[in-house]
Amino acid sequence: MIKAGILGGGQLGRMLLQEAANYPVITHVMENDADCPAAKLCHHFFKGDITRYEEVMQFGEGLDVLTIEIENVNVEALFDLEEKGVKIIPRPAALHTIKNKILQKEFYQKHEIPTAPFKILSDRNELNSHVDMLPAVHKLATGGYDGKGVQIIRKEEDIALGFDAPSVLEKMIPIQKEIAITVAVGQGGQTAVYPPVEMVFDPVLNLLDFQLCPASIPEKVLWKAEAMAISVARNLGSAGLFAVEMFVDGNENVWVNETAPRVHNSGHHTIEAHYSSQFDMLWRIMLNYPLGNTAYIMPSIMINILGAAGYSGEAQPEGLEEVLSIPNAFVHLYGKRETKPGRKMGHATVISNERQELIHQANRIRTTLSIKGSKAI
Amino acid sequence: MIKAGILGGGQLGRMLLQEAANYPVITHVMENDADCPAAKLCHHFFKGDITRYEEVMQFGEGLDVLTIEIENVNVEALFDLEEKGVKIIPRPAALHTIKNKILQKEFYQKHEIPTAPFKILSDRNELNSHVDMLPAVHKLATGGYDGKGVQIIRKEEDIALGFDAPSVLEKMIPIQKEIAITVAVGQGGQTAVYPPVEMVFDPVLNLLDFQLCPASIPEKVLWKAEAMAISVARNLGSAGLFAVEMFVDGNENVWVNETAPRVHNSGHHTIEAHYSSQFDMLWRIMLNYPLGNTAYIMPSIMINILGAAGYSGEAQPEGLEEVLSIPNAFVHLYGKRETKPGRKMGHATVISNERQELIHQANRIRTTLSIKGSKAI
Repeated sequence: MIKAGILGGGQLGRMLLQEAANYPVITHVMENDADCPAAKLCHHFFKGDITRYEEVMQFGEGLDVLTIEIENVNVEALFDLEEKGVKIIPRPAALHTIKNKILQKEFYQKHEIPTAPFKILSDRNELNSHVDMLPAVHKLATGGYDGKGVQIIRKEEDIALGFDAPSVLEKMIPIQKEIAITVAVGQGGQTAVYPPVEMVFDPVLNLLDFQLCPASIPEKVLWKAEAMAISVARNLGSAGLFAVEMFVDGNENVWVNETAPRVHNSGHHTIEAHYSSQFDMLWRIMLNYPLGNTAYIMPSIMINILGAAGYSGEAQPEGLEEVLSIPNAFVHLYGKRETKPGRKMGHATVISNERQELIHQANRIRTTLSIKGSKAI
Repeated sequence: MIKAGILGGGQLGRMLLQEAANYPVITHVMENDADCPAAKLCHHFFKGDITRYEEVMQFGEGLDVLTIEIENVNVEALFDLEEKGVKIIPRPAALHTIKNKILQKEFYQKHEIPTAPFKILSDRNELNSHVDMLPAVHKLATGGYDGKGVQIIRKEEDIALGFDAPSVLEKMIPIQKEIAITVAVGQGGQTAVYPPVEMVFDPVLNLLDFQLCPASIPEKVLWKAEAMAISVARNLGSAGLFAVEMFVDGNENVWVNETAPRVHNSGHHTIEAHYSSQFDMLWRIMLNYPLGNTAYIMPSIMINILGAAGYSGEAQPEGLEEVLSIPNAFVHLYGKRETKPGRKMGHATVISNERQELIHQANRIRTTLSIKGSKAI
């Protein structure tokens, strides 16, 4: 049987392993924490630091195929493992491009994929030469993750907040809608495209944390966005799953924001709402089977379940009973013992043919379910 | 977190564990084979013999809740564990009744649940006193499993084939249709009923191995069958999942054949085709959450993938590529290393609103996918 490895053992790894059990594959997971969400669902767990060359080499040697569930891995080791014949998905060259925000922006530019105008900076001082770009988004070239390493610079006085390191300064796009499209690329180069998801903004609660699928966008925008997402995926020259995040502005222009070369938060709804989920799809790619069917079975909404503000320590879900009584809702808790404010502790998906029902139930879930902790902070 | 145990580590345990990862639960599995399908998907694996009192006691003590994925377990230990405060689902008393075909038949009789007329026999010789019952089905009281322990006695000369042990002799029902209904019973006694599945007989290949959902039966038969299934589940006086297999005869009479007090082969399609799968439902019952939604998202067909005749040894799937190219098909392989003729190696489910599409794709899967082995036998 094929031996497949995953670098990283968080919830994405966990959900990959839930699907792996449908296929003839022996699973290996590497993560520094033996108590991580994916540790108990794999054939072989390897405790190690995915950012260290020697440890990744040790883990990867002897595997047939290897993937990532987080970008922050040792790419040098992946290049060398690829050299030794391990199939790496995504290819280290693609990951190398994406991991560095400077290279990623240059990649979009080179391939004429619309993206916000930008400048490359080597230190904070250079921000002073680009006051004409403000308001802008300042992004660290490397090391940013999950909202970290990103700083809004609205006006000259904000420059002190900027990063004193290699970075990208992006002109702020007047966003009307945020969407994401996942593209699957098989080992033979064949592609399959998931319908776009839309980040729904709640005007009452002023929160942006629903993902609705399919996105409600004009056909012209859909075509543009699909073409751009496919262009990103194809030009990266690698098999894998690519979640392409995009902005739509008021003039129906579409701009690529960022790409994740892996299973991604924006694809969680595919578990129940699509014929082939993003997790199923990545196994098909890794095991060199035909790509799955990206169509949706029913429209869906996905809501992240985050650690509640004001709590840390042992996670204590509240309101789970009520949420589990919603007839068309699916709950996934990630098995993380410790909560902290904003930590991704799970997600829920609702499927329905009625958009209003989706939004109603998602709001109900958000106001009902909370992950508190054993300590008030 | 709740500590939950499963006695048995086959494919049913495996699929239970795939769902367990959505819930806050620590999973323990007991099975004699450390290489069994469920061994690598649980938090704690306990190698032991589920039919031995001491080993089951050792495994069960300290757990909060315990279930089975096969009837052939040590029930005495379950009675004693229940006494010690471990929640056993299904209750040992219900399992005790079902495990013994004599007690099971007497249970149906006592509760006036229609079942084929029968006689209780203590040895083979007694068959001679019931020649008037022939053609009949002769079933061992205990120890039968998966078609073993069942013998058709058509005429007097077949009596020599009968079992020389405590057994049940059942009059043969002129079966027009075989159906099954799964009933979920929560810890508070609340019930939820899945739509009936129908075993589809293929007139060309003379094989009975599709399960179609929902069954195509007249409303009157549906009502009767549902009422009977609920009556079986309620009268067993236990929380749990109960798969009630029934016959429908040419006069629209419905007869209970057998009941399985656990997740069951007849519920595999619920993974993709229903809001709450049988595996999800059993976790809801064990963890004392609201029952799930038994409704189907789309009609479905399920086909067992069996070890091909003429092969044993290391399993080698053939035709998987083609089956994975069917847009609305889902494949589950159980990770069993060794195949043998007729062994359950996996299953596939197709979902579609068109009954003809379901049957077409199921036939395609059956003629395409086969599990051969490293040895010809």
